[in-house]
Amino acid sequence: MPKSTIRVATTEGCFRMIMPSLMRQFKEMYNDYGIRGVIGNAEQLWEMLENGELDIAFSGISLLAPECIEKDFLFEERLYLVVSEQMLQNYFPDRYPECVEEFRKGADIREFSGMPFCRSLPNLHCMQILDHLLEREEVTLDCVHTSGHFDLHQQMAQENLAACFSLSMYLPHLHELNLYSDNKLLVFPIKDLTETNPVYILTNKDKGYVEGTDELRIC
Amino acid sequence: MPKSTIRVATTEGCFRMIMPSLMRQFKEMYNDYGIRGVIGNAEQLWEMLENGELDIAFSGISLLAPECIEKDFLFEERLYLVVSEQMLQNYFPDRYPECVEEFRKGADIREFSGMPFCRSLPNLHCMQILDHLLEREEVTLDCVHTSGHFDLHQQMAQENLAACFSLSMYLPHLHELNLYSDNKLLVFPIKDLTETNPVYILTNKDKGYVEGTDELRIC
Repeated sequence: MPKSTIRVATTEGCFRMIMPSLMRQFKEMYNDYGIRGVIGNAEQLWEMLENGELDIAFSGISLLAPECIEKDFLFEERLYLVVSEQMLQNYFPDRYPECVEEFRKGADIREFSGMPFCRSLPNLHCMQILDHLLEREEVTLDCVHTSGHFDLHQQMAQENLAACFSLSMYLPHLHELNLYSDNKLLVFPIKDLTETNPVYILTNKDKGYVEGTDELRIC
Repeated sequence: MPKSTIRVATTEGCFRMIMPSLMRQFKEMYNDYGIRGVIGNAEQLWEMLENGELDIAFSGISLLAPECIEKDFLFEERLYLVVSEQMLQNYFPDRYPECVEEFRKGADIREFSGMPFCRSLPNLHCMQILDHLLEREEVTLDCVHTSGHFDLHQQMAQENLAACFSLSMYLPHLHELNLYSDNKLLVFPIKDLTETNPVYILTNKDKGYVEGTDELRIC
């Protein structure tokens, strides 16, 4: 039986990107601890931390989170525009491939408003950032798919079904997709999108020391 | 502008496995139609069909579904047990590798009850099938991760964090994972699990002909 079991959580997309290998590293370093991986949206994670159903979470945080939650800043994420080469060629026949260099300096979202898009629901902070920009620029996107699965959005972009948005943490997945396809996905910073998406380690400061939590921080 | 837009839906896991390439094929064959891809659980898909928010869905169906839904049988899925070679070796040190051949004839779930598992929530039909078996065999599994993301379960199995279950439709993903790792995932039929998981094409028989639906059936 493990000495104790640590319950670690993050949002669905982030879990997919980091947790399997993080959990393996933890098990390799601390084989006498158990580890459970939990998925939830930010609000669910805060609530589970508050109720003592979780020991540690990786997520964003807002003023709506319960006061007992302690945050340690982890990293800052940026949101990028992702378009396949073929789709760019179809939508900018007169400017391709020269436009690639131009968009690399900052893609103006208004120029892409004729494309179909995949996006996430507006409850994610990174989508609120985007929606502020769309509102300022008076742009409405034609969304052919809405879900929280950013890796799936990239797959659909590679099939030329849509353009999409990617947070920094999904770029390794994009580079992997690019290894196995001739239709490369291109990543552009978005012009005038200055807001970023901070990710924190969240714990409950009112709960006593949880065995294993400090060990996890080392991973 | 597209002639008309067809709204196609399936469950999250199935979407990930089949929809990006299905949607691309549809667009290649019928470029003058638009296609939107929607994700939902079975109950949500039935409701959206009933309300005319969807044209076609790929999903299971039960007696609880609204009467207006018409089903066409598509395929029958089986649920398999998935364990990595290293994990099998750790848990069956005296019987590995001979036990592999034995388990290929049908793995007795009781022999695996000491392993940690990933599984899905019991609201999925394929999990209800499993739960019937666990109940009959009086086995309780130690679940380190619960989610509807079967491809993620396979990733965690490859990291030796848990054993898991896979429906037939996720086996191509498993074979892909096996291409890039020395720690192969092994797939075993489950002894005494005879129930299967049927998947249907669902439409609303009360709604008139939807342009594009017949075209999609051809894909």
